[in-house]
Amino acid sequence: MAGARLASRLTHSPAHQLSRTAAAAAAAAAASWRRRRDSVSLPRGSVSRMSCSVGSSKVTRVLFCGPYFPASTIYTKEYLQSYPFIEVDEVGLEQVPDVIQNYHICVVKNRRIDSDIIAKATQMKIIMQYGVGLEGVDVNAATEHKIKVARIPGSKTGNAVSCAEMAIYLTLGVLRKQKLMDNAVNQKDLGSPTGETIFGKTVLILGFGAIGVEIAKRLKPFGVKILATKRNWSLGSLSCDIEGLVDKKGGPEDMYELAGEADIVITCLLQTSETVGIVDNMFLSVMKKGSYLVNIARGRLLDYKVVFDHLESGHLGGLGIDVAWTEPFDPNDPILKFSNVILTPHVAGVTEYSYRTMAKVVGDVALQLHSGEPFTGIEFVN
Amino acid sequence: MAGARLASRLTHSPAHQLSRTAAAAAAAAAASWRRRRDSVSLPRGSVSRMSCSVGSSKVTRVLFCGPYFPASTIYTKEYLQSYPFIEVDEVGLEQVPDVIQNYHICVVKNRRIDSDIIAKATQMKIIMQYGVGLEGVDVNAATEHKIKVARIPGSKTGNAVSCAEMAIYLTLGVLRKQKLMDNAVNQKDLGSPTGETIFGKTVLILGFGAIGVEIAKRLKPFGVKILATKRNWSLGSLSCDIEGLVDKKGGPEDMYELAGEADIVITCLLQTSETVGIVDNMFLSVMKKGSYLVNIARGRLLDYKVVFDHLESGHLGGLGIDVAWTEPFDPNDPILKFSNVILTPHVAGVTEYSYRTMAKVVGDVALQLHSGEPFTGIEFVN
Repeated sequence: MAGARLASRLTHSPAHQLSRTAAAAAAAAAASWRRRRDSVSLPRGSVSRMSCSVGSSKVTRVLFCGPYFPASTIYTKEYLQSYPFIEVDEVGLEQVPDVIQNYHICVVKNRRIDSDIIAKATQMKIIMQYGVGLEGVDVNAATEHKIKVARIPGSKTGNAVSCAEMAIYLTLGVLRKQKLMDNAVNQKDLGSPTGETIFGKTVLILGFGAIGVEIAKRLKPFGVKILATKRNWSLGSLSCDIEGLVDKKGGPEDMYELAGEADIVITCLLQTSETVGIVDNMFLSVMKKGSYLVNIARGRLLDYKVVFDHLESGHLGGLGIDVAWTEPFDPNDPILKFSNVILTPHVAGVTEYSYRTMAKVVGDVALQLHSGEPFTGIEFVN
Repeated sequence: MAGARLASRLTHSPAHQLSRTAAAAAAAAAASWRRRRDSVSLPRGSVSRMSCSVGSSKVTRVLFCGPYFPASTIYTKEYLQSYPFIEVDEVGLEQVPDVIQNYHICVVKNRRIDSDIIAKATQMKIIMQYGVGLEGVDVNAATEHKIKVARIPGSKTGNAVSCAEMAIYLTLGVLRKQKLMDNAVNQKDLGSPTGETIFGKTVLILGFGAIGVEIAKRLKPFGVKILATKRNWSLGSLSCDIEGLVDKKGGPEDMYELAGEADIVITCLLQTSETVGIVDNMFLSVMKKGSYLVNIARGRLLDYKVVFDHLESGHLGGLGIDVAWTEPFDPNDPILKFSNVILTPHVAGVTEYSYRTMAKVVGDVALQLHSGEPFTGIEFVN
C-alpha cells in the first residue's frame, strides 16, 4: 500500500501545473459560486441506491484523466478540500495506465478507457464521466472486472441547460456568419454580411433527450417550427412536460423525412455504435440546399468526408460544431477553412453552473464510496 | 432636368461596383425570398396616411447613401426592378452633397444629413432611414425645407426580431468568452474556457421598446429574471402583451437601482441628446462586479472612456457590442484588445428577413410618392 499511496500523491502531475491565471479564475468563480450554491439542489438518492466502499483503505482516491477540461478537476478538489481522506489527482492521458491501479474512482473526461487499462485498475470501484458521454469506456470489460460505470444525468446538473445554450449560440453563429462578421470588422466594413434569423425557420432536433428538450424550450419563442426524433416518446422517458413544444415527432425511422423539412438540424444524440456516422450522405442529401447543421453532442455522429463534400458543393449552408472527429481538433484541418464553419473547443457543457454542480456530484460519490453510503446523482450503465 | 437625369444615372457609382460574390449571394437570397414573401405582411396604411408626389417628374429617384449596409440598396433595386419609372442609385458618403439635388427620396444609412446637405436637396420629399435610428438627420432643417423625415418601425419588419436575436448571440458570446474559445481551438486546448450560462441570471433591458420586448420574450425561457426601464409603461405604448414577461419595471429614474441588481445589461435605447453617454461612470459603478454589458442600439449610448476603465479594472466582466463610437470602428482600437470584448459590424438588424421586408417598404414608398398615394410602413417624425 505504501507504493500506492506514494504514486497517488503525484506531486508532479499536470494538475499541479495549472497556470496561476486558471487558478485565480477558478478562485474568483468559486467565491461567486459559494454565494449561489445553496440554491442548487440535486435529486439526492433519486438516481441510484447502489452503494459500495473502498474497504480497509484509509484514503479514497479519485483520478481525473487530464489534461483537458481543467475546471472539472479544480472544482472537484475545491469541493472536497475539507475532506483529507479523499484525494483527487489528475494525470495526463499517457500516464493513466501507469497509475490507475492506485485509484478507486476514475473520471474519464476524454480518455479512452479500454480493456487493457481496465485490467490494471485493480482497486477501481467506479469509472464515471464528468457528464453524460461514455462512448470511450469499454463497459463490458468494466463489468467483467466488477467495476461500475456511471454517467451524471444532465437534466438536473445544468449540463443539458449549458449545452442547449451553446447549441443556440452556434446556431446564431452560423446564421449570422461569424467568420464573415469578424472579417468585416477587420476590414472596416459595416452592415455586412447579411445574416439569417432563427425566426421563421424549421428546426430538427435529432435525439430529443434532456438537451433537446432544453433547446426546444428556448427556441420555441424565437418563432420556429420544431421537429424532433426520439426512440421512445412515452411520457416516462421525457424529463418534463413537452406539451406544445414539438410540432412534429418521429422515431429514428422518420429521420430522413424530417431532415428534408428542416432549415436547421441540431444533433443531440449519444454516440453509440448505432449513431456513429448517422449524419451520412443520405442524410445530408435530403437536407434542404443551404440548410444548417449544428452538433453539440459528439464529433463522430457526423461523417467527416460527407460533411466536407456538402460544404464544398454549397449544399450545406453552414456548420457549427462544439465537438470534432478527433479532439482536440487540428486547427489547420481543411474543413475549418470554409467561411461558414465554426468550431468551439468542446465547451457546450463547460459552465460555472454545470461544472460546480457536477463537482458536487463527483465529490459526493467519493464521500459515499468512502463511507459506504448509497450513491446519489449518478446513473449506472452496468 | 437633363443634367439631373444624367447625374442620377451615375454609372460609376459604388452600387455598380458591388462584387460578383455579393450579387450572387443576393440573387440566391432573392430566390429564397420570392418563395416566402407572400407570408410577410406589412401594416399597409396603418402607419401614415400622408401622401405627396414628385410632381411633373417622369422618374422618381431614390438615393442610398453608401457604401455600407450594401444589401439595403441591392434588395430595394431588386424589389423595384420591374418599375422603370423608379430609379435607385447609391453613391459613397463623400459624393452625397454633389448629387442630392437630383433625388426625391434619400435613404441615409449611416450618413449624417446636416443642414448644409439638406439645403441642397431641392427636389427632396422624404429623408428616411432603412430602419429606426434617425440620430444622423437634422430633422429641424428638414422641416424648414418642407422635407418629411421618416423611420421604418421595427416591430413589423423583422428589424426588432433580428436585433433581439443578435442581442442574444452577443450575450452568449460574452458569457462563453468567444475570444478565449477561439484561442483554445487554435492552441489545441479542449474543454476550456469555463463559461457562464444565461440560466439563473438577472437581465436589465435598458429601453423596453420593440427590440426589448423581443429580447425578453426569447430570454424568459432561458430561466432569467428580467428588469426593464421604459419612459411610459401604458399599454398603448407597447407592441404586444407583455404579461409575465418583465419581473420588475422601472422608469428612467430607476435605472441605477435596477442596474445594481443585474448580471447582464442590454441597451436598446434610441440615441438622442438625452441618451448619449447614459451608460456613464455612475451607471457602470453601480453594476455588479463581473457583470456583462451588451449594446445593439447605438454606440454613443456608452461612454467609451468609462467602459474602457471598467474593463481594465475588471469591474466589467465582458462587453458585447454591435455598434461602436465611430463606425466603421478602428479594428486596432485598444478596447478590442481585451479578451472579454467582442464586436460585430453593425449587423444586428441586417438579416434576409428584415432587409427584404424593409426593401419592400422603401420600394412601396417610392411607388407611392410617384403615384401620389398614401404612404405605408413608415413613421414620420416631423
